[in-house]
Amino acid sequence: MKRMDNPIYKVVIVGASGFTGSELARLLVHHPAVEIMMITSETHTGKPFSDLHPQFYGILDMELVSASAVENSKPDIIFLALPHGISMDFVAKWEPLGAKIIDLSGDFRLSSPEVYENWYEKNHSYPQGFKNAIYGLPELNADQIKDANLVANPGCYPTASILALSPLFARNKIQKGSVVIDAKSGLTGAGIKANATTHFSNVNENFKAYSIGSHRHTVEIEEQLSTLSQNKVTLQFTPHLLPIDRGILVTAYASVTEEMNQEKLDKIYHEFYQDKQFIRLRKSPPGVKDVRGSHFCDICPVWDARTQRVIVVSVIDNLLKGAASQAVHNMNLMLGLSESTGLSQIPLKP
Amino acid sequence: MKRMDNPIYKVVIVGASGFTGSELARLLVHHPAVEIMMITSETHTGKPFSDLHPQFYGILDMELVSASAVENSKPDIIFLALPHGISMDFVAKWEPLGAKIIDLSGDFRLSSPEVYENWYEKNHSYPQGFKNAIYGLPELNADQIKDANLVANPGCYPTASILALSPLFARNKIQKGSVVIDAKSGLTGAGIKANATTHFSNVNENFKAYSIGSHRHTVEIEEQLSTLSQNKVTLQFTPHLLPIDRGILVTAYASVTEEMNQEKLDKIYHEFYQDKQFIRLRKSPPGVKDVRGSHFCDICPVWDARTQRVIVVSVIDNLLKGAASQAVHNMNLMLGLSESTGLSQIPLKP
Amino acid sequence: MKRMDNPIYKVVIVGASGFTGSELARLLVHHPAVEIMMITSETHTGKPFSDLHPQFYGILDMELVSASAVENSKPDIIFLALPHGISMDFVAKWEPLGAKIIDLSGDFRLSSPEVYENWYEKNHSYPQGFKNAIYGLPELNADQIKDANLVANPGCYPTASILALSPLFARNKIQKGSVVIDAKSGLTGAGIKANATTHFSNVNENFKAYSIGSHRHTVEIEEQLSTLSQNKVTLQFTPHLLPIDRGILVTAYASVTEEMNQEKLDKIYHEFYQDKQFIRLRKSPPGVKDVRGSHFCDICPVWDARTQRVIVVSVIDNLLKGAASQAVHNMNLMLGLSESTGLSQIPLKP
Amino acid sequence: MKRMDNPIYKVVIVGASGFTGSELARLLVHHPAVEIMMITSETHTGKPFSDLHPQFYGILDMELVSASAVENSKPDIIFLALPHGISMDFVAKWEPLGAKIIDLSGDFRLSSPEVYENWYEKNHSYPQGFKNAIYGLPELNADQIKDANLVANPGCYPTASILALSPLFARNKIQKGSVVIDAKSGLTGAGIKANATTHFSNVNENFKAYSIGSHRHTVEIEEQLSTLSQNKVTLQFTPHLLPIDRGILVTAYASVTEEMNQEKLDKIYHEFYQDKQFIRLRKSPPGVKDVRGSHFCDICPVWDARTQRVIVVSVIDNLLKGAASQAVHNMNLMLGLSESTGLSQIPLKP
Repeated sequence: MKRMDNPIYKVVIVGASGFTGSELARLLVHHPAVEIMMITSETHTGKPFSDLHPQFYGILDMELVSASAVENSKPDIIFLALPHGISMDFVAKWEPLGAKIIDLSGDFRLSSPEVYENWYEKNHSYPQGFKNAIYGLPELNADQIKDANLVANPGCYPTASILALSPLFARNKIQKGSVVIDAKSGLTGAGIKANATTHFSNVNENFKAYSIGSHRHTVEIEEQLSTLSQNKVTLQFTPHLLPIDRGILVTAYASVTEEMNQEKLDKIYHEFYQDKQFIRLRKSPPGVKDVRGSHFCDICPVWDARTQRVIVVSVIDNLLKGAASQAVHNMNLMLGLSESTGLSQIPLKP
Repeated sequence: MKRMDNPIYKVVIVGASGFTGSELARLLVHHPAVEIMMITSETHTGKPFSDLHPQFYGILDMELVSASAVENSKPDIIFLALPHGISMDFVAKWEPLGAKIIDLSGDFRLSSPEVYENWYEKNHSYPQGFKNAIYGLPELNADQIKDANLVANPGCYPTASILALSPLFARNKIQKGSVVIDAKSGLTGAGIKANATTHFSNVNENFKAYSIGSHRHTVEIEEQLSTLSQNKVTLQFTPHLLPIDRGILVTAYASVTEEMNQEKLDKIYHEFYQDKQFIRLRKSPPGVKDVRGSHFCDICPVWDARTQRVIVVSVIDNLLKGAASQAVHNMNLMLGLSESTGLSQIPLKP
Repeated sequence: MKRMDNPIYKVVIVGASGFTGSELARLLVHHPAVEIMMITSETHTGKPFSDLHPQFYGILDMELVSASAVENSKPDIIFLALPHGISMDFVAKWEPLGAKIIDLSGDFRLSSPEVYENWYEKNHSYPQGFKNAIYGLPELNADQIKDANLVANPGCYPTASILALSPLFARNKIQKGSVVIDAKSGLTGAGIKANATTHFSNVNENFKAYSIGSHRHTVEIEEQLSTLSQNKVTLQFTPHLLPIDRGILVTAYASVTEEMNQEKLDKIYHEFYQDKQFIRLRKSPPGVKDVRGSHFCDICPVWDARTQRVIVVSVIDNLLKGAASQAVHNMNLMLGLSESTGLSQIPLKP
Repeated sequence: MKRMDNPIYKVVIVGASGFTGSELARLLVHHPAVEIMMITSETHTGKPFSDLHPQFYGILDMELVSASAVENSKPDIIFLALPHGISMDFVAKWEPLGAKIIDLSGDFRLSSPEVYENWYEKNHSYPQGFKNAIYGLPELNADQIKDANLVANPGCYPTASILALSPLFARNKIQKGSVVIDAKSGLTGAGIKANATTHFSNVNENFKAYSIGSHRHTVEIEEQLSTLSQNKVTLQFTPHLLPIDRGILVTAYASVTEEMNQEKLDKIYHEFYQDKQFIRLRKSPPGVKDVRGSHFCDICPVWDARTQRVIVVSVIDNLLKGAASQAVHNMNLMLGLSESTGLSQIPLKP
């Protein structure tokens, strides 16, 4: 129920067909400070949203419109739930509209068009956009996000990876070159497109690594941790595909630069995250189902005295903290709302 | 966030360790008109609730107490999330307390102690309880539930089965003896207890029927449909175990007593459910994931002219519409609140 | 290891890319009386078979050839592992070659081109083929299969359904119009093609009915049971999609024409299947995992005295007894080999 | 079919109830050189084996006997499929019988009773056994296994881990302290016992790490790689639980001591494994389903020039190459049979 005594902001979701679009809709339908004024789709223009996502039947049956309708609609917030390489054109076109834009693609996450072109292997059509884009990880960049007009919503793996290691990098306690991030993601990370990778029989009862040494999220993680530690970070990142719908679990390994023990490690994490309400520091390793359907990131740092190494496990719901709820969190900051507005979902388990 | 301008009712959840207990807690934490004053557990007294259900870490860490603490606590509502055979003793003991009781077990769902003893194969310790117990299916019994002090919350299979067939039985259009209900449930229906049935390797990649011709929910369905049609109903009910966490799908077959076609069938269902906001009539067969995590029951009735038979598919989340959210719906009715209060969760898919 | 003292028959698999093709290969590589001389693919000509199915790496790396190569290769047996509508053209073209043909598609399973055109909604290009085609269900038609040159390998649902009910139909004990077959299949039944239906996130943690009242296998089952009982059979058939790779479970319901009890029912089944080595009569309901990876069909008939109805549960591996191993069984019969040659795989469980 | 022109060895399986026992039976039923003379169980004495494992119904219905029956039965081979801590007593008692013993527990895998007591946290009742026990990893120790009377069958994680890294350790090319092994196992690795860990709802759609820094398999891996490299190895090992039945995937990370490139790395692996028929070197990362139901270990070594690190992915079926088929492989060596006898199963996929 909307509270009519508050201003209601008008939001547009561009790109209705994917998982990110439907999760944004799920969160925004019940968000007390916004109204979904428009959801766009070029392929499905004219169909009810619930035709594409039948879970919304009777809840959100609004007709999908072409993205061209956005231009005359004066939205307050535009969410771009589009593939990378497509988003950039809309940012270029719509920046003058004055709406705040939250881009869920990878188009403005990196530091420069050159880095983008190197890792995404395609030209960037709107290099000017990098100037204003803020990396939308609220736990690190809340102040900048509040003033931003263009937020680049982080990737799912980077969210889990950066949050796992930030307390140590922020204090410069990581040995150069020592970091290995072994990451595992549910299948929705591969998107809604039907292909061999997403065929049930290739995923179910299976598990595999992919993009060893070459995944695009590697550089996104490295850049953010470099900024945080004011040192160039190079690290190992290996993604794997889990036979589940949702969830990312990151197991991060690092050697440290000073004497360490469990107590000291815990203190570093508690201090860093003390006022971050969506970070839950856990004493035993969390499972991905502990955060499913929620905006939480659960983190468990462990000191292994035998090997003199830190192991950090972090889990998120890749569609939420790794995408849609992070976008809403960013929106809350950009609109000056309380950070947690509309984000109080308790994990759905089992 | 609770609205302080409304009265806040005090609720107790008796039985913290199971799935029903944790789902009740998930719904009630955000319910705007109630406050969880107490959660009980005999086995885990003294532990935080979130120790048993780590998804609640930082959200609901309240200490579990012994059920004996209920007696002096003056709750408004008591939810009994206990196994059948145990609940009856608490009902007997606590009816005098004056709190409204919602019993999620099977102890008061049937018409008499004799029927209970016949199908549950054990004595009933509180036969007097049947006199006041109301069968808590809001779509059929809302008026009685509003005035009830003791509600027997329906079984999961009966909820999906009765809702699938009620429009036809209410109009007495079903041929005697013709009904076959082929039902399939996710594993959480078997409970949280670890045994051979719930071992991952017996469930995963498997599927089987069980309790053919003898499942206790059979008589619960028969009794309710008998009452509705004012005719004694005998029907075939076969449950199966699905390798998923949540969800019941019922495929019900029936021959009818008059000429039928799809249009006429649709009209019967639309009229019967026209003002029921949690029933969604679907044109194509729904999947269990379309309602996961929500209070919806999606129903799709089909007329097969070739075989002259009605086939109705219905789906619910067994832990919600089949247990916890149905209990909250009943509570809303008993407290005179709007029926949908706290029940607006959109299905979590994928 | 092949036994060199026996004749080795030369077999061709036409259609390498699907699940049926790969399962045929898996069985035939170790079949002691045959040699795979050729596997064809038009899309993947020139690639090693193991490129498409990496589980065969180092085991079956033979290069895929175009189907046109079959004509000069003098095979003894041709397996057509092609979609329906395509197979018929190959049968037309290759019947003169003199090889025995086992067609795993639906093109020659029905009684006439007219019935085919009615249920498959397309013209049949080789109506003459029906004259010689034998329905390849060894438990019913072994004698005819032995002499056949063209075998139509049964559908997966029909195999499980017909075997569940044959003992009763063969003795004409089923009440006309009373049969309901509620069938559930693993996802591989939907094929290897990537589309919305086979996308992991639509299958995983989901379950739904489809093609209610209209699935093509309905008529296949009806025709075979009609032949068996020498009475026209019309029945209800409803397929559902299970979130597992392999396995079909059929729950069949029927009223009977004479007094019945469990002992009598058991006797009927034992007599009918007494010398059928791949039928296992079970006292408690089997799960699909009890037969996974094997040629078995496990059947459990139950008499429900309360409802006066027979309930029969049957399970098969849809890719094996429902496709590839059934084809090999047919081949064994056609070549005069022992029926069980190469088919002794023990179910893989868990 | 057994070949009667060869000697048939008599084998006993001690411990019928677990997954290892049933998989041993599955392999040995069709092994051409052996006969299962006895399967023991104390809990289920007198029941048919197929009562515990219904997939064997009609295939292996032999009655289970007490282990005490072994003593007078003169077996050639005894497989101990028992929990660690129990096996040692049987080894002590039965070594004098003269049968060759293959112990699938962890009781004799380590170098000494002291190391055992340190990592398994219990006393060892038969320290003398260590003297004769050979570590049964055929790819490394075939010659010793041939002469052994007591083989300690390796753990599942160690098998996948050691095979992933042996080529580099054998040439001493690994930088001291640089190895991180991030391992993921299917649920059957946790055993057949019903408890919270193996409850479907804790595993399904979930994924978590456990025993960080303290898993017993760590020292088993370290000891074998130490022996191989003639240097004391300390490494990081982190196990995770996958929501699948079978399969282990190991992602191993290491820095090397000399200049490296992909070609050089491939050469090292090809040379080391050139005559090992169950090792398949893969060019792209394998999934666990590529080896399910088979004795293969698929390995893919990758050189990451950017980070100057080797990443090796290996996959096995934990119940086969990680347990039962490895035991049969050891038996073949001990009996002087061809190594691959009875082990030609092609992976079951999908």
